[in-house]
Amino acid sequence: MRDRLTIIKVGGNVVEEEASLKSLLKDFSRIAGNKILVHGGGKTANILSEKLGLESKKVDGRRITDAETLKIVTMVYAGLVNKNIVAGLQALGNNAIGLTGADLDLIRAAKRPVGDVDYGFVGDIKAVNYQALNELLASGAIPVVAPITHDGHGQLLNTNADTIASELAVAMCFDYEVQLIFCFEKSGVLMNETDDNSKINEITPVLFEQLKHEGIVSGGMIPKLSDGFAALKRGVGVVVITNPAGISEGLRGTRLVLK
Amino acid sequence: MRDRLTIIKVGGNVVEEEASLKSLLKDFSRIAGNKILVHGGGKTANILSEKLGLESKKVDGRRITDAETLKIVTMVYAGLVNKNIVAGLQALGNNAIGLTGADLDLIRAAKRPVGDVDYGFVGDIKAVNYQALNELLASGAIPVVAPITHDGHGQLLNTNADTIASELAVAMCFDYEVQLIFCFEKSGVLMNETDDNSKINEITPVLFEQLKHEGIVSGGMIPKLSDGFAALKRGVGVVVITNPAGISEGLRGTRLVLK
Repeated sequence: MRDRLTIIKVGGNVVEEEASLKSLLKDFSRIAGNKILVHGGGKTANILSEKLGLESKKVDGRRITDAETLKIVTMVYAGLVNKNIVAGLQALGNNAIGLTGADLDLIRAAKRPVGDVDYGFVGDIKAVNYQALNELLASGAIPVVAPITHDGHGQLLNTNADTIASELAVAMCFDYEVQLIFCFEKSGVLMNETDDNSKINEITPVLFEQLKHEGIVSGGMIPKLSDGFAALKRGVGVVVITNPAGISEGLRGTRLVLK
Repeated sequence: MRDRLTIIKVGGNVVEEEASLKSLLKDFSRIAGNKILVHGGGKTANILSEKLGLESKKVDGRRITDAETLKIVTMVYAGLVNKNIVAGLQALGNNAIGLTGADLDLIRAAKRPVGDVDYGFVGDIKAVNYQALNELLASGAIPVVAPITHDGHGQLLNTNADTIASELAVAMCFDYEVQLIFCFEKSGVLMNETDDNSKINEITPVLFEQLKHEGIVSGGMIPKLSDGFAALKRGVGVVVITNPAGISEGLRGTRLVLK
């Protein structure tokens, strides 16, 4: 039987507010076995951009990354957010190591071709160095991955953290029984976004289409669910969307299922 | 015979201007055998601080780090500068991995006690995890170390990059024949700081005291030389201060010797 690997993507308010981050890291540190944390940091990046007089733009939940924005997200994601998470996990006895896709050539990406929209320095993932991740996990290290990749020619690129989590899950599911958890501030995908009790327990691809059509699922939740379904189709065992409480309480939340 | 390990600290204009960084990384990538790059980034941090309306303060070449400055240096050192170096080295076929002292608990430090000066969130190094560095080097990875450490209780700390390079050199010299190179924009320690031909080829502790007394050595060069001599006394084989050309041309520059 393959070992279990838990990949948790944290974003939204969870990772960027000190109190909720602390609580998340405690829950994360209690997860037994192999684990990887993938994080965002968009809100902090937006605040820094504003302070510096830059505008941040998004289309369909995906950030548009000009040269200045790339600097900002590299600083915030790979620097501030990543290293505070690493130091926080170390304090809890978890041997965390912070990584971007450039480190150990972990995630190689290609700059997204300019189509209807020019996303700028945004990277679409081409290859995951699963051997390097395997070696780190085997040594007892806990990778903490910031959503920055590289093209192998010296260019850093901004890549959606949900997509990174999904691609890592797919790359690792040859060697591990992978469960992929998208963790944010709500209890799951909600029928009514202001009511945390309106959680949908299970979503199939058919229901996903319907929820999109009805506008119940929108914005950043669309690529998150698309990435989740893609991961399931490519061999990932479990995909769940939940909040930190949902992780510590036996993985409650919204489960994605293929049928 | 022990393997050679070259530890290069780069700072000043070398690492923060695109052209000189590119050239440095080419020289660095050609160094055979085990190697570690330690970098600064103070000028970029100062520019960002200024843009954000913060003042940067230094005493004896050591930065004073309040909470906001700690955020800035974490972003700039561990994020922007570190990841651009890593991506640049990966493009040259060097399997770089960017690290701070928090990653893998690599460098544990203690917040400097408040004496005559309150340095703020500045860390004095207490322990280097040489086992983790050994494992990374054995796997063929090339550590790129940003001058950020942690206290093991979740607090990141700002630590002088020269000191980090020296402490890594000392920690590794039980297992390796270590040469420690401080690389900056000048050919070495100069008798006349505006004349790059006035390089001093060799400095002993006695000459160091004299140069300090005469004001020929001042500012950030004082802790650099102090760190270098401390490393020599604790078993590091070679300590040289030079520019990138000095590295590629058979290690020319100013050599520190104990007598």
